[in-house]
Amino acid sequence: MISVLEKDKIKYSALQEKAGIPAPEIFSPSVVKTIQKFRRIQPSSEELVNGILSGSITALSRAITLIESTNPDHLAKANEVIKACLPHANKSVRVGITGVPGVGKSTFIEAFGKYLTGMGKKVAVLAVDPSSTISHGSILGDKTRMEELVKDKNAYIRPSASGETLGGVARKTRESISLCEACGFDTIIIETVGVGQSETAVHSMVDFFLLLKISGAGDELQGIKRGIMEMADAIVINKADGDNIRKAKLAKSEFNRALHLFPAKKSGWTPTTSTCSAINQDGIPEVWATIEKFLELTKTNDYFYTKRSEQNEYWLMETINEQIKLRFYNHPTIQSLLDSTKKAVQNDEISPFAAAQLLLKEYFK
Amino acid sequence: MISVLEKDKIKYSALQEKAGIPAPEIFSPSVVKTIQKFRRIQPSSEELVNGILSGSITALSRAITLIESTNPDHLAKANEVIKACLPHANKSVRVGITGVPGVGKSTFIEAFGKYLTGMGKKVAVLAVDPSSTISHGSILGDKTRMEELVKDKNAYIRPSASGETLGGVARKTRESISLCEACGFDTIIIETVGVGQSETAVHSMVDFFLLLKISGAGDELQGIKRGIMEMADAIVINKADGDNIRKAKLAKSEFNRALHLFPAKKSGWTPTTSTCSAINQDGIPEVWATIEKFLELTKTNDYFYTKRSEQNEYWLMETINEQIKLRFYNHPTIQSLLDSTKKAVQNDEISPFAAAQLLLKEYFK
Repeated sequence: MISVLEKDKIKYSALQEKAGIPAPEIFSPSVVKTIQKFRRIQPSSEELVNGILSGSITALSRAITLIESTNPDHLAKANEVIKACLPHANKSVRVGITGVPGVGKSTFIEAFGKYLTGMGKKVAVLAVDPSSTISHGSILGDKTRMEELVKDKNAYIRPSASGETLGGVARKTRESISLCEACGFDTIIIETVGVGQSETAVHSMVDFFLLLKISGAGDELQGIKRGIMEMADAIVINKADGDNIRKAKLAKSEFNRALHLFPAKKSGWTPTTSTCSAINQDGIPEVWATIEKFLELTKTNDYFYTKRSEQNEYWLMETINEQIKLRFYNHPTIQSLLDSTKKAVQNDEISPFAAAQLLLKEYFK
Repeated sequence: MISVLEKDKIKYSALQEKAGIPAPEIFSPSVVKTIQKFRRIQPSSEELVNGILSGSITALSRAITLIESTNPDHLAKANEVIKACLPHANKSVRVGITGVPGVGKSTFIEAFGKYLTGMGKKVAVLAVDPSSTISHGSILGDKTRMEELVKDKNAYIRPSASGETLGGVARKTRESISLCEACGFDTIIIETVGVGQSETAVHSMVDFFLLLKISGAGDELQGIKRGIMEMADAIVINKADGDNIRKAKLAKSEFNRALHLFPAKKSGWTPTTSTCSAINQDGIPEVWATIEKFLELTKTNDYFYTKRSEQNEYWLMETINEQIKLRFYNHPTIQSLLDSTKKAVQNDEISPFAAAQLLLKEYFK
């Protein structure tokens, strides 16, 4: 609390400023009106589809905005666009990239993306970050972190969709992938940060899953989230530069050892480890070479195709399961009973199974 | 296909047998009737509760049979019994034991159980084996594998309940635990074999989770199912006897190293590794000492109690989620549409999300 005396001091201090005059409008009101009018003209779904299929980034962005909308009309239109684009999608490689903040994901994606566009590829970068609703975009929030890639006409970067549930964010990203593919992007990079179940979601929408790490002090493997290492098709240790090279190589062999502890993958692929320095563009071609080897193997043994088909089914079931749960738990009767039921169950007043039956009976009556 | 000529050969072959005479009844019909009549006299739920609370194994067994029944009247009665027993349950330690076939689970449980009853404890052994419906009880199917423990009046062994779903088997086992506890059993051992999600189910109903292993040729860690090692509070390498001792000790240090790769547990407990020879009763007291240390730690830091309460809530939610899914997928309209929808989704004719919306619309209309 500031005392009255201190307040007076501030009031009459030399630091005190007089009220200024109102600032002039930055934009001319007529210009604003023109822009608003232009924005209001929504292209038809046919126009969007034609635009996307002819490679128009504007059409792609507008269609993704529809996907992300909560307006039912927008969603209906989005569904039309997706349906028309689906036969043209699917021709790509989808790479998931995860790693905790600080491993240099943005720098890596920038270097990796530039390397790919340099080879004539078209690269789309999307993100799954359910936390972005709260943190307002902790990843890919501002594109300035991928300065070079943003300017690249063969790259398209889209920040994470926001949404209340991971399921919602995942749906939006998953459908955006299809549109990017229909728009001619052949390499889709999905970035995620280790929040809750987001890695599992990303793992279920990509062909290849890459875990980015850095070497740290002490035990390299401490602090890895459950299950993430088992999902990885490759572990890449970034920031292998300067004094760090030796440590990074050590980390590589530690991870390599750890990877061998896990059971063989259904893909037939043995996960790899490598080092890189995204900032120096070292080790980037090797990552792509690994992915190409993976594609060769899994396209030969058909795993690539069966996995994509399984992933489609997975999202069908996931969406259904999420929706029927939401319906149940949002039901007024259930909402009024759930807390007291949970308490009774926690205190062993009723068995969890008997309690579940009571709630189900209420819901279905 | 067998040709006519060959058929003739069989017909007139020396191997051909004449039809025999009907075999006599093994049991006298009057004895069967008496047994059936006796079985038909069902004790009331009060009688069962009183029996259980006074330590009657007959009452306990009958009540568990009600839990396992598919008859709605039996289930209603079972619910009454469970409800009355719940305030008397919960005073025990619940130990989950898993390991692939061949590690000597039965021998271990026999040795461990005998050690505990020798200390004056009352030990109940239950199992979660959803596969037993198909394999007719691959574990605990016949009690003869625990010869000594079966004869022990302070031990109670119950084979795995059967059921079509893991959820069903889990419910039955979970509720049987409560009855065993109300009956005065202070140590509950839940056995499971690595089938599908059964370990996760068992992990969600015990305080302490023990992974039984043996040393094998080559890399000790190959072939461990995803996530199991991360669940373990202790890894015990069995069959550490004779020529095997050195190999078992080696395996122990391999596992110890591997366990340190995982993130710290919420319980604050650092998983342990040890060797034992169940057949020679070596290393068994050490296992119990480990569990006692675990209990001391987790009862001091309250994890023991919060986990049990969380487990109750988990089973409440799990049961609800399983039931609402079953309702959905068993709905005639959904059943008639699901296969074609799945196919359309797999072939990229429709997005999984749009397809889910269509099915949900049909279901909720």
